[in-house]
Amino acid sequence: MTTNGQKRQKTRKPLLINAFVMGCAGLQNPGLWKHPKDSSHRFNQIDHWTYLAKLAEKGKFNALFIADVLGGYDVYKGPENLATPAVAGAQWPVTEPSAVVSAMAAVTTNLAFGVTFSTISEAPYHFARRLSTLDHLTKGRIGWNVVSSYLESAARNLLNGEKLDEHDQRYLKAEEYIQIVYELLLSSWRDDAVVLDKKAGVYTDPTRFRKINFEGKFFKVPGPHIVDPTPQRLPVILQAGTSKVGKEFAAKHAEIVFVISFSPDDLKPKIAEVRQLAKEKFGRNHDDIKFVALATPVIGATHELAEEKYQELLSYGDIEGAQALFGGWTGIDLSQYGEDEELGNVSSNAMRGAVQNWTKAIPNEKRWTRKVIAKQITVGGLGPAFVGTPEEIADELEHWSDHAGLDGFNFTYAVNPLSFEEIVEDLIPVLQRRGLAQKEYPNPETGSTFRKNLFGTDFVPSTHPAYNLRWRAGVSKEEFEKSLSK
Amino acid sequence: MTTNGQKRQKTRKPLLINAFVMGCAGLQNPGLWKHPKDSSHRFNQIDHWTYLAKLAEKGKFNALFIADVLGGYDVYKGPENLATPAVAGAQWPVTEPSAVVSAMAAVTTNLAFGVTFSTISEAPYHFARRLSTLDHLTKGRIGWNVVSSYLESAARNLLNGEKLDEHDQRYLKAEEYIQIVYELLLSSWRDDAVVLDKKAGVYTDPTRFRKINFEGKFFKVPGPHIVDPTPQRLPVILQAGTSKVGKEFAAKHAEIVFVISFSPDDLKPKIAEVRQLAKEKFGRNHDDIKFVALATPVIGATHELAEEKYQELLSYGDIEGAQALFGGWTGIDLSQYGEDEELGNVSSNAMRGAVQNWTKAIPNEKRWTRKVIAKQITVGGLGPAFVGTPEEIADELEHWSDHAGLDGFNFTYAVNPLSFEEIVEDLIPVLQRRGLAQKEYPNPETGSTFRKNLFGTDFVPSTHPAYNLRWRAGVSKEEFEKSLSK
Repeated sequence: MTTNGQKRQKTRKPLLINAFVMGCAGLQNPGLWKHPKDSSHRFNQIDHWTYLAKLAEKGKFNALFIADVLGGYDVYKGPENLATPAVAGAQWPVTEPSAVVSAMAAVTTNLAFGVTFSTISEAPYHFARRLSTLDHLTKGRIGWNVVSSYLESAARNLLNGEKLDEHDQRYLKAEEYIQIVYELLLSSWRDDAVVLDKKAGVYTDPTRFRKINFEGKFFKVPGPHIVDPTPQRLPVILQAGTSKVGKEFAAKHAEIVFVISFSPDDLKPKIAEVRQLAKEKFGRNHDDIKFVALATPVIGATHELAEEKYQELLSYGDIEGAQALFGGWTGIDLSQYGEDEELGNVSSNAMRGAVQNWTKAIPNEKRWTRKVIAKQITVGGLGPAFVGTPEEIADELEHWSDHAGLDGFNFTYAVNPLSFEEIVEDLIPVLQRRGLAQKEYPNPETGSTFRKNLFGTDFVPSTHPAYNLRWRAGVSKEEFEKSLSK
Repeated sequence: MTTNGQKRQKTRKPLLINAFVMGCAGLQNPGLWKHPKDSSHRFNQIDHWTYLAKLAEKGKFNALFIADVLGGYDVYKGPENLATPAVAGAQWPVTEPSAVVSAMAAVTTNLAFGVTFSTISEAPYHFARRLSTLDHLTKGRIGWNVVSSYLESAARNLLNGEKLDEHDQRYLKAEEYIQIVYELLLSSWRDDAVVLDKKAGVYTDPTRFRKINFEGKFFKVPGPHIVDPTPQRLPVILQAGTSKVGKEFAAKHAEIVFVISFSPDDLKPKIAEVRQLAKEKFGRNHDDIKFVALATPVIGATHELAEEKYQELLSYGDIEGAQALFGGWTGIDLSQYGEDEELGNVSSNAMRGAVQNWTKAIPNEKRWTRKVIAKQITVGGLGPAFVGTPEEIADELEHWSDHAGLDGFNFTYAVNPLSFEEIVEDLIPVLQRRGLAQKEYPNPETGSTFRKNLFGTDFVPSTHPAYNLRWRAGVSKEEFEKSLSK
């Protein structure tokens, strides 16, 4: 075993490591803003972000992922109860995630930025410009976390009084939306359209861009795209869907999939299912999709000190805020249950399923009540808090990765930025020594695109649905359009 | 005269001075990207913007204004002819203007940023979040240039196949849109809603935010706003409308109005008209609105050298690109006229009006043909190129300001960033010596909000339509709602 283990360590790929953040306090840690060392309420200050970005780059992180929601978590004690998340500072208020990217890109060279944008938030033409602009400004260090928005609190403000489409319809619309974005980014301009020939007086060769004339069930977008080709041509596609159609969307499009669970046993079949779907239905390879799991390291010099720290962190947790987050994430209003009710036997399938996973992952907790659930959530959300020494946490991360087929982790914080400082100072060096984290970026001085750092290439592989949509240099408009119509 | 002149110079307010830029080449200088020293094609690089921002702050500029269009200028030789602006690099391609703000804000303390956003580009709730986020991140250094989009090339891509509303209807919709933005930013959260009381465990006081329940003819937006109050509460409102309803919109809402003309004689009545409308119809004061005019300084050590430089700049102009810009700006397709046709007598009122203004402003040009118009446009667009020594240009700027009642200028470039370097190094010191430009910001070390630097206060005056919409600290929800219903 040791020999095998050592051999595996030498040849294994380093984990994909991201910082998981959002334009709010109380991301996966409701109430922790009260911690004396926490400054997560400074999310509306630029230096909060540039500091984090530099720190993550120091730790050779792949990316900083910015989550987002477009409305508050108003299910708990609802309908439309925002008082609880407001008091608790539980993802309320929330600023726009892309606005901070250029400031962070200006102070980093290799770190990438995964930004969440919903397919219900703006017209695809308008959004495609935003995405292209960010890929240009970051020199190709952008990923798009595709979400289709599930919160009624967002929909009623965005959709002009109309209701959110039902779930499957929303994904159909999202499918069309992403297709338009692909076509605008890839099929509208040829790679070498911008020639900047000062002598001939030609900025863009007009035979090298075209309309896309998209006419779908939901959208009509003639084009052309208003921005020229960007370093990645297509930002890295991220996704976090866990429903049936969500998994299919991920299997088809995603290059990175976020997963969340308390247990690697629970994750293993879920990851395998998406990989299988990707292979069988869409012909994609095992290495075409990276799975990353949410994790909150709580690091101590000894196991006991780490446990003490964890208890100290929990003491700042906001029990009400945790239930508000739970309501937003699951749609389940915990206030409908008794304070002390055992929730493993209630009629709700979702509730029972959650409790079953937690029981597997945290077997010493015999009784899951509202309070116990809330306490669990206050450090780490619906993902695990890894409590221990750097070595112990590295063991756990390795176990999760090997057991569940995980490619990496989204590290989030209990206390911001202290948790990230500890991860970078204490945990990353241990992971690096074991070959579990990269010691350096592929091109530390000049930087690479997000996708190049991840997959070794700037563009998606031929198995990706966007691959054939790219108008490549040297291909005439007629040839390209013929290839599209095949 | 000299005594009066000197006295006036001592007491006069410094001009409002902005840099006028956009996420494209060929802004008001089609073809000048071919100039050996020009790097305006680098608009998709962050350092292009951070350099400009630092330069503008060095010159004690008030703001950097980022213009925008959401489609190409396809009227000339159209319909839908983008080949001409593409070849000429005439505002095509165009990146998204707000993405660069945080990078520029990170390297400046006092410079403000005027960003163009169209009221047809996204849902008002979504846009309001964007605006609030930028006001937070810049510490209150944001202005919103409100445009309602006039280009069919933009509309057909944004509106899902629907036609652009006719002009007056567009302004009605824009009026409702801006009202929603006001209410989300001002009426949804009380100034002191975010209390961050770590001891009491209260992040936001839930009695201090509310829904706005907006139900208009075009939009339904219940709220609440998703972002807490920002430094300015309401970004500075900028506007550039010149039509009848556009002027009314400006007279009601705008704090800065952009004007463009070749002649101060032409500007004088236009500015007076909006001021009068503002006073008579909306009860606003003379000093509540600042008028700034587009200007392209071409600076030389002697008048002859400046003239030489102007001729050299013109030699890089792209005649076709200039006509494409003209088509976009005016809707007039110059290709419908003969190459050598005198355009002062044609049937089009708009064309004849333009020629009349130019004839007044540039009397030595006897004959306005397509080529002459295009040449004029290639350095300065529809605004004047001020060609001369710094002293001569300062004289002109002073004359324009005094004669037309102008409050300042939007300086744009012929060659980027060289033109701005020359403005900062050569022209600004002369303006400063004469009291025509501020020598220092009001709070150089700590910075101030955009509005504070402009008007001395962080919020709009009581004569502004947004003034009473603000939920102020200490006012109960009931009192506030009573005040709103008055």
